[in-house]
Parts: sequence; structure tokens; C-alpha cells
Amino acid sequence: MPTYTPPLRDMQFVLHELLNVSEGLRKLPQHADIDRDTIDSILEEGGKFCAEVLFPLNQVGDREGCTYKGDGVVTTPTGFKEAYQQFVEAGWGALGMDPDFGGQGLPHVIHSAFMEMMNSANQAWTMYPGLSHGAYNALHAFGTPEQKKVYLTKLVSGEWTGTMCLTESHAGTDLGILKTKAEPNADGSYSITGTKIFISAGEHDMSKNIVHLVLARLPDAPAGTKGISLFIVPKFIPDAEGVLGARNTFKCGSIEHKMGIHGNATCVMNFDGAQGWLVGAPNKGLNAMFVMMNSARLGVGMQSVGLAEVAYQNSLAYAKDRIQGRSLTGPKAKEKAADPIIVHPDVRRMLLTQKAYVEAARAFSYWAGLAIDREHKHPDEKVRKENADLVALLTPVIKGFITDNGYECTTLAMQVLGGHGYIAEWGLEQHVRDARINMIYEGTNSIQALDLLGRKVLGDMGAKLMKFGRAVQETIKPFTENPAMQEFIAPLNSLQSEVQKMTMEIGQKAMKNPDEVGAAAVPYLRLLGHLVFSFAWCISAGVAMRRLAEGASGDEAFYKSKLSTARFYFAKLYPETAALMQQARAGSSSLMELEEVNF
Amino acid sequence: MPTYTPPLRDMQFVLHELLNVSEGLRKLPQHADIDRDTIDSILEEGGKFCAEVLFPLNQVGDREGCTYKGDGVVTTPTGFKEAYQQFVEAGWGALGMDPDFGGQGLPHVIHSAFMEMMNSANQAWTMYPGLSHGAYNALHAFGTPEQKKVYLTKLVSGEWTGTMCLTESHAGTDLGILKTKAEPNADGSYSITGTKIFISAGEHDMSKNIVHLVLARLPDAPAGTKGISLFIVPKFIPDAEGVLGARNTFKCGSIEHKMGIHGNATCVMNFDGAQGWLVGAPNKGLNAMFVMMNSARLGVGMQSVGLAEVAYQNSLAYAKDRIQGRSLTGPKAKEKAADPIIVHPDVRRMLLTQKAYVEAARAFSYWAGLAIDREHKHPDEKVRKENADLVALLTPVIKGFITDNGYECTTLAMQVLGGHGYIAEWGLEQHVRDARINMIYEGTNSIQALDLLGRKVLGDMGAKLMKFGRAVQETIKPFTENPAMQEFIAPLNSLQSEVQKMTMEIGQKAMKNPDEVGAAAVPYLRLLGHLVFSFAWCISAGVAMRRLAEGASGDEAFYKSKLSTARFYFAKLYPETAALMQQARAGSSSLMELEEVNF
Repeated sequence: MPTYTPPLRDMQFVLHELLNVSEGLRKLPQHADIDRDTIDSILEEGGKFCAEVLFPLNQVGDREGCTYKGDGVVTTPTGFKEAYQQFVEAGWGALGMDPDFGGQGLPHVIHSAFMEMMNSANQAWTMYPGLSHGAYNALHAFGTPEQKKVYLTKLVSGEWTGTMCLTESHAGTDLGILKTKAEPNADGSYSITGTKIFISAGEHDMSKNIVHLVLARLPDAPAGTKGISLFIVPKFIPDAEGVLGARNTFKCGSIEHKMGIHGNATCVMNFDGAQGWLVGAPNKGLNAMFVMMNSARLGVGMQSVGLAEVAYQNSLAYAKDRIQGRSLTGPKAKEKAADPIIVHPDVRRMLLTQKAYVEAARAFSYWAGLAIDREHKHPDEKVRKENADLVALLTPVIKGFITDNGYECTTLAMQVLGGHGYIAEWGLEQHVRDARINMIYEGTNSIQALDLLGRKVLGDMGAKLMKFGRAVQETIKPFTENPAMQEFIAPLNSLQSEVQKMTMEIGQKAMKNPDEVGAAAVPYLRLLGHLVFSFAWCISAGVAMRRLAEGASGDEAFYKSKLSTARFYFAKLYPETAALMQQARAGSSSLMELEEVNF
Repeated sequence: MPTYTPPLRDMQFVLHELLNVSEGLRKLPQHADIDRDTIDSILEEGGKFCAEVLFPLNQVGDREGCTYKGDGVVTTPTGFKEAYQQFVEAGWGALGMDPDFGGQGLPHVIHSAFMEMMNSANQAWTMYPGLSHGAYNALHAFGTPEQKKVYLTKLVSGEWTGTMCLTESHAGTDLGILKTKAEPNADGSYSITGTKIFISAGEHDMSKNIVHLVLARLPDAPAGTKGISLFIVPKFIPDAEGVLGARNTFKCGSIEHKMGIHGNATCVMNFDGAQGWLVGAPNKGLNAMFVMMNSARLGVGMQSVGLAEVAYQNSLAYAKDRIQGRSLTGPKAKEKAADPIIVHPDVRRMLLTQKAYVEAARAFSYWAGLAIDREHKHPDEKVRKENADLVALLTPVIKGFITDNGYECTTLAMQVLGGHGYIAEWGLEQHVRDARINMIYEGTNSIQALDLLGRKVLGDMGAKLMKFGRAVQETIKPFTENPAMQEFIAPLNSLQSEVQKMTMEIGQKAMKNPDEVGAAAVPYLRLLGHLVFSFAWCISAGVAMRRLAEGASGDEAFYKSKLSTARFYFAKLYPETAALMQQARAGSSSLMELEEVNF
């Protein structure tokens, strides 16, 4: 019953009209020849695959879930395996990967847009190749040439999939206390022993081999995070040519019964002297882990963009179709027994909240995709560094702000459907359940907030934040002359200066009491999120106004819709910043004064 | 793995120290002899039943759900039937019901407190007797003496259960367009034909008979809500002595697969010329429906108080037990590998948000319970009217504000557990799924907001709101002399005057454009919610200060905890009002300007 249509026009608006990607990519030698038509046709084809192959499996996957068959065997829901086969054959998994290992070498920003559609269609399924991508990133950055030759080519082709084995039952946020051991063997390999939990895609029947990247401790490792190393631990041990040999000595012990993403196997992995190979330097595993993790955090943000988009589409369709009650200003659909519920202001609030959040989140995450391309491929080192800083600063905002909003959006989408929203067959409640994990995994949203305020902002005395501020001002400069733009520019500028002022205040308080950072971090992250979204709506409005002034060639309705949504954002969502500023300024005392025993 | 301990001390604080119930009840002739000890021992015993009998069935019910066996037969999860037997035998269902029909005649406020514990223990199970209570209320108010004799006694004893059959697939919020027909029979009964959906407890195996109260249209009924009548339609048709006879001609056609409350059967009911009897006057069914509905709305608020309480208890236990990372101000549990996560400011924010919301919601809903007792049983008509007005005004706030907060609280409780929160066995994710329905059923929260602002506030030009304002000022008067109380009284007073000012503004705008009501209603309801919670925390702080000044007889920690939680509320939750005021004032234009086709 639910439907999904890839939002190609909206994606093109961001890619071509807001970000001007083909112009930006022209400055990166390896992407200089990608034009707008190529991008559009890749996304159109990719969208078909998502809508026609992945989306029909979304409710099936939720209903059936994965099954633990005993003795380490896990089967995925009906159709998952076949869809993966199609995905690999069509080369979709290799889209953004390195041509040296068989990848198609497309820019990250295009990969981001494709990921949005995959996640709209089926988040649980998309996590299988998603985890491979994390493993690919770590091996690409830290693997030896031999490791890359064997493992990367198979991860790129999709013949094998990957995982990230970090968490243990007593060690989640705090990886420093993990216990899995790695004992050196005579042949240069290691014997890995320990139990990992919450391993997404840890065991399944979709690929010939599964490559686990496992954090463990060497015998002489220092305590804490400085004593963690990263190991490749393949399910079947390949020879130097990638031909599979013996089954390694570890198994999936069970899978979790969880709130959502039922189609993805969340595994307990028992490593029992399993053979593994060190990736990168001994005791430097956390560096490699952060390469996976940062990419995963951006990926999680994209999961919520995707879920919020599909939920919006279905709640909008319902709101136009469902007749119930009359408009407060008199009947609108006089020929019917009642008006469609989209006439009601509060139904519109629920729809526009989704629309405003999804479209800004799309702009924000594609922008980050392009920044990653620049960070890695721009010939000018200064530009690379500039973009690396912006990506570092905003990664926790993408993860934290977009996933919190994604949960709110899917919750609102359900609410538009009333009682039907609570019923499984309509599909909305699944989106809420799936969206809920995004606020937790790859670092809870509290951790994102601490990373943002403590490390990324105060860690360099606000230098990265100032860079972002300058980028904002530079981008809006072309619009500042237009008096009609003041309704958007004024609140953006006011928020930007408020955030800067508040950052200094918190920085000063934090020097006396580090708990002030923990107390302010969550509202601070949301404030920065609103700063980014104000920016996104400001330039969206600016571009829309310009196009309308130029005549908009038959597309007036589209641009007017952008203008109206921008107005809605500033009228109804931006005001949250008033509360957030008070909350961030309220400090730590009211949080800390109650003694633990008196809770 | 999850646990539940009835929060007796906190309940007593509200009943005896904030509300002074036994003094209040002394003025109601039929409750004049209930003292504090009686109340406490009823709740202690009731709490045992909830914790020992109902709570162990909560996860079972979620896992197994109800089963549709074909041919109209529905079975409930393992243990549900037996628990219901115990419930009936112990007389718990008859607690607040009329002694004329076998009830125990206890005050509503005690019933409310008992309902909180039942809902903490098992919302899905509690809905079975909960629906009976709605049917009881309607029959008690509108049934003939004969109907009462046959049906009420069985509903009170619990031998039979009841339902409310309102919704049809095309008619939910808008009952005026419902189609179920009632054709008069020669013997004075009616033949009911039509299909009802979303009928909670519509069919099950827990009681001997099920009494459906069905909304339907008489042949000559006027269109819309003025042509709806209410009928009793029993599953088995009783004779005048209540002896069961023929099976009536209707069946459960299927049950819904839904996000939560799996243990409660949500039924499609097909009435096929079923025999029914008119309740109340022809075409006046909506009056009777509102009697059920208002009681149900208060009951839904209590469901969320219960869920938020049990979620809080379990997230608190986890936060004290789970060690992970170190406090930002240096190690606290030096003997351990890490500190318990309750040392982190943001974990405390998540716990204190729950605590502040749950405790204020408890105070608010018990207060409403006592007001209902006064409304129905006070000898002075003026007092009855006064309380009726307050209950009418605040019912949508209880339903809307407490259930929205309940969802937020259970979502935060899950978040405290990180990845474990997403796993079913920990129990937290079930609370979120169960809490989600409370924002939808018995009138979505948008409808509550419209009812509040349109009907209850603007409908009498703010008269009921002024009454509430006077009640607030009278109650806080004993505390206003204390300078230490200003930190709580000042924000309460400021919010109260802001709400009054804003009400006039919206009223004036609404005269020109009725959509202004729909546009402001949801933030307005939350503002009024915060006004009530500010009031609750203000008097809680006042009482706590007084007790501490008196020496507090060994209970200092308890009262200090109230003071700290009040401070937290005003520092971190109250600031939401700054955003809400901007949102409510932003009006309808940004909601209405986008044309439907351009969404």
C-alpha cells in the first residue's frame, strides 16, 4: 500500500541549483568531465532500482525479519538475497568506489544522493552494502597493498560484504574498556578471542564471504583507547588471489529481537581464536575506527533523510486523499461529504514540518558529500583543509540533528494518518521504528553533541565554527542586496551572531567546570542544526526568487513552493532556537545538584 | 529483566501533601469517612496486584499478541485470561463504581491512582477493563433502570466487559459521516448493520459476554452528528435477569497488526442485523458518546503517566548500574573501570526530564480525579459547577500534553540505554510503541488542541481559563510570602499573564479568520500544559520547603529531591514556552499559503 517515488526534481534542485555540483566537480581533476545530464541519468536509473527492487521488500523484511537457524546460520528475509545479486550485477555498490579496485569512481556527492534513495526504499537492506562501505573506507585508508588487493576488490565488486566489530556487552560508548584479545601467531597473523555484540550484517546469506573489521587488544597493549588495534577477520580465509579457503573459527551466536530494522541481522559474534590480520599500526586501531565511524555517521544522517522523505510522501498522499470534517473557513470540497484533511492548518503544520526538515537535510547532506569530494580530491591543499574542517565540524550535526528530526518527522507522518498510522500495513509505523535506531547507533546523539561542542568547537577555540560562519556569509552575499530576501537573511544572521556569542560564554564557563560542556551540548547541537537549516532555507529562497524573477520557464509552482516552505521554516520551526538558547545558557547546576541516591 | 515498583511514596506525596485528599473528600458525604490509612492500604494492595500479576504479563503480551482464530474467535496472550479472573475475584474492577450496582464506591481520585499503576504494569491488558469503564459511564448516565439492572451489574462485577464502537473506515475524527444503520424492530429493539473498525477489546476470551456500545443512524435521522444514536449490542443476548441467551448476529472479522499494545485485540466488527437497544434519546448518541469519551481521554492521559513512570524506573536503574566512560570532572567510581553513566550531565537531563514530567503529570491527573469527585458529589452546586468547568477545560490538556510528553519520556528512557534500549528484552522499546497510540486514539492530539482552544477557551470568552487562573493564585497564596519561593512563583506568574494576553490576541485574530484557531491550537495546548506543570512544580516546591523547614522527620532527601526537580523543570523544560509563544503568535499565513498541489 505505501508508495515511493524518487524525488528527482528536488534532488536536482539541490545538486544543480543550490550546489552547482558539476561546476564544483570540474575543479577536481578526476571528476572534471561529469556533467549535469550524466548525474541526472545515473540518479534516474538508481531511483528505478530503489523504487522497483528495494522498496517492495521493505515491509516483507520488517514482517519476516532475519532468522537464526542455529549453529551460526542466519537467513535474510524473502527476496533480500536476490535483490543483492541484482545490485551487485548492476554495479550499484561500486558507484563511489576507487577505480583502482574496480570501482566506478563517481563523486561522493552522487553516492550520497543515491544512498538517500536506497534508504527511502529500504534502510534494513541498505545496511548490508552500507557496512561494506565502512569496511572499504578503513581498508582503503590503512590496508597494506596485499590486503587491498585481496579484500578491497571483493568489497568493491560486492562479492563479499563487510562489518565493523566494535561493541562488546560492557563496552559501547566507552571502547577503551573493550576486552577482545589478539594473540600473535608465528605466521604474522593473530588469534582473536572475544565476544562482540550489535554487529549489523554480522552474519547472513547474501554474499560468499563476510569481512569483519574487529577491534581487539594486543597482549602488551596499554590500557584504554591507546591500546586498541584493528584486525581483518574474514569468515572464509582467502589466499593471495582471493580464492576462499578454510572457515574461520568464529560464529554468530544469536541475533537480536529489536524495535525496527528487522531485515538487518544484528549479531552476537563469538570469536574463538579466529585468525585475523592487523590493519594499520599496532595500538592505532582507533584511528582506523574513526575513518569508518565518520563515514558511518554521515551515512546514518542519510538514512534519516531517506526515511523522512518516504514517510512524508505517504502522509502527504493520505492528507490529500482522506476526507474528514470541514475546513474551519467553510467547505472546500463541496461535492464531497467532507474536505480532504490537508485543508486543516494543523495537518499542514505536520506536513510542512516534514517538508521543511527533509529538504533542508537533503541540501545539508549533499553539501557535505561535495565537501568530502573537495576534501579528498581538490588540487589545492588549502581548499582540502578548509573542507576537511567543515566536514569535521558538521559531521556530528548531520548525525545528531538530522536523525532527531527524522524521528520527529516519521512520528508526525504517522500522526497525519491518525489510527491508520498505527497499523502496520500502512507502513508509517515501521518508518518510526526504523528511524529510532539512527539516534542511537554510530555514537548516540548525546555523544555527537559532546563531540561537536567539546572537540570540534571548543577544541580549536571556535576556529572551525568561524570558518563555517565565513562560508555562510560568502554564500549568501549574492542575495543580500535584495530587500525581499531580508525576511530570510535577518533571522539567519541573528542566529549566527547569537551562536557565536553563546559559544564564547560556554567556553568560559567550561574552563571553570567541564560539566558545563555536557550540560549545554545537546541544545547547542540543535542550535547549530538550525543555523545550518536557516542557511539552507535562505539560499533555497534566494535561488527560488531569482528563478521566479527570470520567468522560471513553466516551473513557477516548484519555486513558489520553496519560498513558502522557507517562510514556514522561519515562522514555525526556527522559533525553537529561543528555547534552545535558554536551555543551553541554563548551565549545569540544575542537572548536577540532585544526588544519585535521590533520583 | 525490566522491573516495576509502585511509586507509593510519590503517590502519597500527591494525594496527602499536595491535594490533601482526605480533607477534600470529607466534604463529599459519600466519601466522608475515607482516611489516609485506608487510601494507602488500598493502593499498597493494588500495587502488589499490578506488580506481581499484571507486570509479568506485559512482555508476554507484546511478544505473543492476540490471535485471530477465524470465524470471529480471538484469543488473548498467555496468562491474560487468568489474570482477569484474579482481577474480578479481588474486586479491583469495581473500585470506583456505584455501590447500587455492586461497586465499591471509592472516590475517583483513588481509582485514578490505581489506574496509573495498572498502566505502568500493562497498558494492553488494562485496556480490557478500561473499555468496560467507558461503557459503564455511558450506561450509568443514560441507561434505563432495566438496562442498568442487567448490564451495569455485570460490568461492575467484571463478568462482562464493554467496548465503544465509534469509528468506521471512512469516519474517525468525523463521526458525522458514519453509516452504520439501526432499523427499528417490532419488539422495540433495533437491527444494527454496518462495520466498525479499531474496536479495542472488541473480541476476546477473557469474559463471558461483551457489551458493545455502538453509534448508528436511525432511518429518519438527520445528516451529520445530529443524527447519531447509541445502542447496546451484547455478544450474547441476556434476559431480564442477565441470563445469557442467543449469540447475537455480529462477528469480529479480523484484528489489526499494529505498532504496539499487541496484547489488546483491535477488532474489525461486522454487525449484520445484530439486535441492539437504544441508549438515551434517539439522535442524541453524541452526548452519551462524549460521556464515554471524556472519561476515556482522562484515562489515556493516565496510560501515559503509567508508561512514563515504568520507563523512568528502568532507565534510572540502568543509568546507576551501567559503567561507561568517566565524568568530565574526573573519575567518580575510582575502584571501577568506568563511572556509572548517571554522572554525565546529559544522562541526567534525560532522567530528570522524565522525572519532572512524570511527577507533574501525576499531580495533574490526580488533581483531575479529585475535581471529578467534587464535580459529581459535592453538596454545593456552585462547587460542582466550578469543578465541572475546570475538568472540561483541562481534559484536553491532560490527554494532549501528558501523552505527547509520555512519548518523549519513553523515547528518552530508551536513549539512556543506548543500543540496549533498542532491544526488545530490555522492555523500553515496547513502552515507546505502546505510548505512541495514546497520542492518536480517543481524539488525536490535534483534535484535543482544537477542543481546548476553540471550544473550551474561546467558546466562553476565556471564562473557564480565568477560573483556572484564580484557582492557581488561590492555591499558591500560602507560599507567596516566602522569598525563597520566588524562583518558582515568578516564572509561573509570568507564564500565566502571557497566556492570558495571548488568548485575547488569538481570539481577536480568530474573529477575522477561523484558521487562526487551527494554526495556534497545538502550541497553545502545550503552553497551557506548561502553565499547569509550572503550577504543579511550584506547589510541590512550596510543600517541600515547608516540610524541610519543619524538620522533615528523616525524609529530607525526598523533599530535597522535589526541590531539585522543580529547579530542573524551570531551568530546562519551562524554556520551551519561549518557542511556543512565538509559534502560537506566528499565525496561519505560513501554513495556508502553499497550494495543495504544490506540496
